Amino acid sequence: MTDQLIVFDTTLRDGEQSPGASMTRDEKLRIARQLERMKVNVIEAGFAAASNGDFESVRAIAEVVKDSTICSLARANENDIRRSGEAIKPAASGRIHTFIATSPIHMEKKLRMSPDQVLEQAVKAISWAREYTDDIEFSAEDAGRSEIDYLCRIFEAVIKAGATTINVPDTVGYNVPEQFAATIRTLIERVPNSDKVVWSVHCHNDLGLAVANSLAAVRAGARQVECTINGLGERAGNASLEEVVMAVRTRRDIYQCDTRIDTTQIVPASKLVSGITGFPVQPNKAIVGANAFSHESGIHQDGVLKHRETYEIMRAEDVGWGANKLVLGKHSGRNAFRSRLIELGAAIESEEHLNHAFARFKELADKKHEIFDEDLQALISDEAVTPESEHYRLVASRFHSETGETPAARLTLNVGEKEIQAEAEGSGPVDAAFKAIETVAKSGTELLLYSVNAITTGTDAQGEVTVRLSRDGKVVNGQGADTDIIVASAKAYLNALNKLHGKFEKLNPQI
Amino acid sequence: MTDQLIVFDTTLRDGEQSPGASMTRDEKLRIARQLERMKVNVIEAGFAAASNGDFESVRAIAEVVKDSTICSLARANENDIRRSGEAIKPAASGRIHTFIATSPIHMEKKLRMSPDQVLEQAVKAISWAREYTDDIEFSAEDAGRSEIDYLCRIFEAVIKAGATTINVPDTVGYNVPEQFAATIRTLIERVPNSDKVVWSVHCHNDLGLAVANSLAAVRAGARQVECTINGLGERAGNASLEEVVMAVRTRRDIYQCDTRIDTTQIVPASKLVSGITGFPVQPNKAIVGANAFSHESGIHQDGVLKHRETYEIMRAEDVGWGANKLVLGKHSGRNAFRSRLIELGAAIESEEHLNHAFARFKELADKKHEIFDEDLQALISDEAVTPESEHYRLVASRFHSETGETPAARLTLNVGEKEIQAEAEGSGPVDAAFKAIETVAKSGTELLLYSVNAITTGTDAQGEVTVRLSRDGKVVNGQGADTDIIVASAKAYLNALNKLHGKFEKLNPQI
Repeated sequence: MTDQLIVFDTTLRDGEQSPGASMTRDEKLRIARQLERMKVNVIEAGFAAASNGDFESVRAIAEVVKDSTICSLARANENDIRRSGEAIKPAASGRIHTFIATSPIHMEKKLRMSPDQVLEQAVKAISWAREYTDDIEFSAEDAGRSEIDYLCRIFEAVIKAGATTINVPDTVGYNVPEQFAATIRTLIERVPNSDKVVWSVHCHNDLGLAVANSLAAVRAGARQVECTINGLGERAGNASLEEVVMAVRTRRDIYQCDTRIDTTQIVPASKLVSGITGFPVQPNKAIVGANAFSHESGIHQDGVLKHRETYEIMRAEDVGWGANKLVLGKHSGRNAFRSRLIELGAAIESEEHLNHAFARFKELADKKHEIFDEDLQALISDEAVTPESEHYRLVASRFHSETGETPAARLTLNVGEKEIQAEAEGSGPVDAAFKAIETVAKSGTELLLYSVNAITTGTDAQGEVTVRLSRDGKVVNGQGADTDIIVASAKAYLNALNKLHGKFEKLNPQI
Repeated sequence: MTDQLIVFDTTLRDGEQSPGASMTRDEKLRIARQLERMKVNVIEAGFAAASNGDFESVRAIAEVVKDSTICSLARANENDIRRSGEAIKPAASGRIHTFIATSPIHMEKKLRMSPDQVLEQAVKAISWAREYTDDIEFSAEDAGRSEIDYLCRIFEAVIKAGATTINVPDTVGYNVPEQFAATIRTLIERVPNSDKVVWSVHCHNDLGLAVANSLAAVRAGARQVECTINGLGERAGNASLEEVVMAVRTRRDIYQCDTRIDTTQIVPASKLVSGITGFPVQPNKAIVGANAFSHESGIHQDGVLKHRETYEIMRAEDVGWGANKLVLGKHSGRNAFRSRLIELGAAIESEEHLNHAFARFKELADKKHEIFDEDLQALISDEAVTPESEHYRLVASRFHSETGETPAARLTLNVGEKEIQAEAEGSGPVDAAFKAIETVAKSGTELLLYSVNAITTGTDAQGEVTVRLSRDGKVVNGQGADTDIIVASAKAYLNALNKLHGKFEKLNPQI
């Protein structure tokens, strides 16, 4: 019998903290549903005390997702823990994940607390959390640079207080596998009652070793790995879920454990997260990159690939490649459309919402005769912008560019209640469109990133545009999809402005 | 004293074998110059016997690069080795890298040779190679799945025959660190005269462990790592140079060795390779991703980051971030332009070539008032398309799109010697442009990928478009840059068609 390895996904918490990856509540819900479908054990849905928006997101996910444990992060203080406890209340299975820094540098310079004070605070945190749930995770922030004796002492105390999962993060991504494994092995050996809890790891990828460190820890006895889809996360990100899961499954001989993950949901999850955040997946990314399973064609023509196993250690279909099928067309009805949306995890909030989305679908089907899941995902993303947050909206547009002339854009925008005309010239039609918008918005933002990806193949595919704007140190991503990429660009720019318009302050903890 | 770790870059060989990453001779030269500037020890410039184009590329790099050893890959047969020997002749320091498969599955199913025949062939290969150079590397293809006794036997024989570097590839990316390190340790212990050669590793990233496996091998005694910029390479790619180099440097305490790499050249190299291949680097990629060194801003505002070392283990400027400086403007002269091009490693082949590029630069400076290195790189890329390969060329264009109307494109194209007008409508202006081109080209290709990235920040940035076309299993990438992304798209499509037009058969070995 092989042990179960618990998969703890933090795409919605640590992943969302990547600059530019912030998500709306509806986007988080769609990802949470996909994580549930993939059979992730624990979904860290957010950091409830960060803002009202975060609280609402955690709570909404706790209400909807029933097959995964829903977890909220909380600093080791009473307010954070009570907010988390309230947010996870609707969950079928809820967890509070509390943390405090334990490395000398963090305790001294960030917390300004003595080791004894930190330990006392951690124990208090566990007792507050127990008022809400018996499923309590404790993390020692910057454990990778903490003293082992102190770690043993604080872990012993929190286990006694009722923590059920002990997480050892390598917050700054400084560890290497042998060393990290030795730390985990020592902790499990030395901490009293270590067999009563699940040992967990949370690795960062600054040196490209997050997955390797996580796997080395699994060999040393860790039975929970914290990870994210596509390795999203602060800086160079976290351990990527798809690599951890497939390494353990492919090399069960080495790791002596397995996850309950439905691996065929991996590629759809990767595409969903990439689409929502606008973070591309590089073609040579393991498991989920476009090239991960393809060989340069010469090889095949050569007849070299006489046996499949000569070069393949995994099958593409096992991780969900090749599921990009034609689902709907011009003649598809409202019911087919609705049931496909539900399968994709979209929240259909009312008949009016569905009608509106269906009208958009019909419009798209007129321009593009094959409609793929990815097109529907883009359409849902577009729809997810709720009217109240939509301060700016594109009504109509006209673009012209010609060799020898200056490209020009004329837009009709809805701003608040008013319809406004805007015109501008630019170095290209996209520049002209953005300048036209700025004649109205005067946002004072800087454009950090502009990218377009075709949602599916073929020249009539929709272009999905990502625009990243910054103002006063705040960074937002806007997205827009259309078969006309200038229109998609204008939509993306407006979407980013809308996000900035409603943007609130929030905290981002580091673990 | 710390040992030297030899950095062997195979971006131009294994990297170029990624579907869609094939490069022209000029593109390869520019990358080779950047690798030399970065102080890479060995550049695997190609596989000379693959095609005449590959032979010419290796030879051109051997002529120009003087500070790095230039290496050509060769199967263990006389023709491959003689072609490699000829190609590296102009090099100040040249290496032949020959390989043959040693795993039971490959010997039986691919080579159809007995283990004794394979050993004999390997020894012959070394003796042919010795006619050209004393710097000979031998690789046991699929060593990761080969029998250890047989590996010892064949390595003993090739060392005796004169091989100076012994490379152990994990061809299918199946190994995990502890196991791979054990293999290397055993080989070094058991193979007679193992101290007379450099032990090398070549890891693939199918399970996300290429860097970890390489580093584990270094701890076990390997002193050469084969790697690529951005981890490019077949399927999920190779170990990424930047991660290996920075892990070894940051954790010298663990690895007890260092490279001679000028790490400030890492980010420029990453951008160059990404620009030429059109493969994006995901923001959360370690070291070279856009977010690798940035924290979500909340943290800073919070005053949490009281001491820099709290969250940083490397400095962004040490790997070349922040070097994106304004270099030229509208009033920059021809000399400033020329010397910047030379610094960027561009090959200026003639005064006429320079004049043409300078005219293009002035045109660009009219539309965009700040010109960055990245803009110049794009301009050189555009220029690098030599006239003889340019069957299709864009002369002029006109695009129009308006809400309620069908987007339309009218192009004037140069096809061979003739000027041709083409018009089409489409689901968007890009689709219209591609359809207009196809009314003339009738290429029968399929569009696999379309993406746009802004080359620098700001709304007047140039868009760099990548188009990936496939026909009969052949895949080519086309690139185009312009401040007007519809124009850039048309250029990219034509560039891909030009590549397909001159496309030759070539072999891609697997190691």
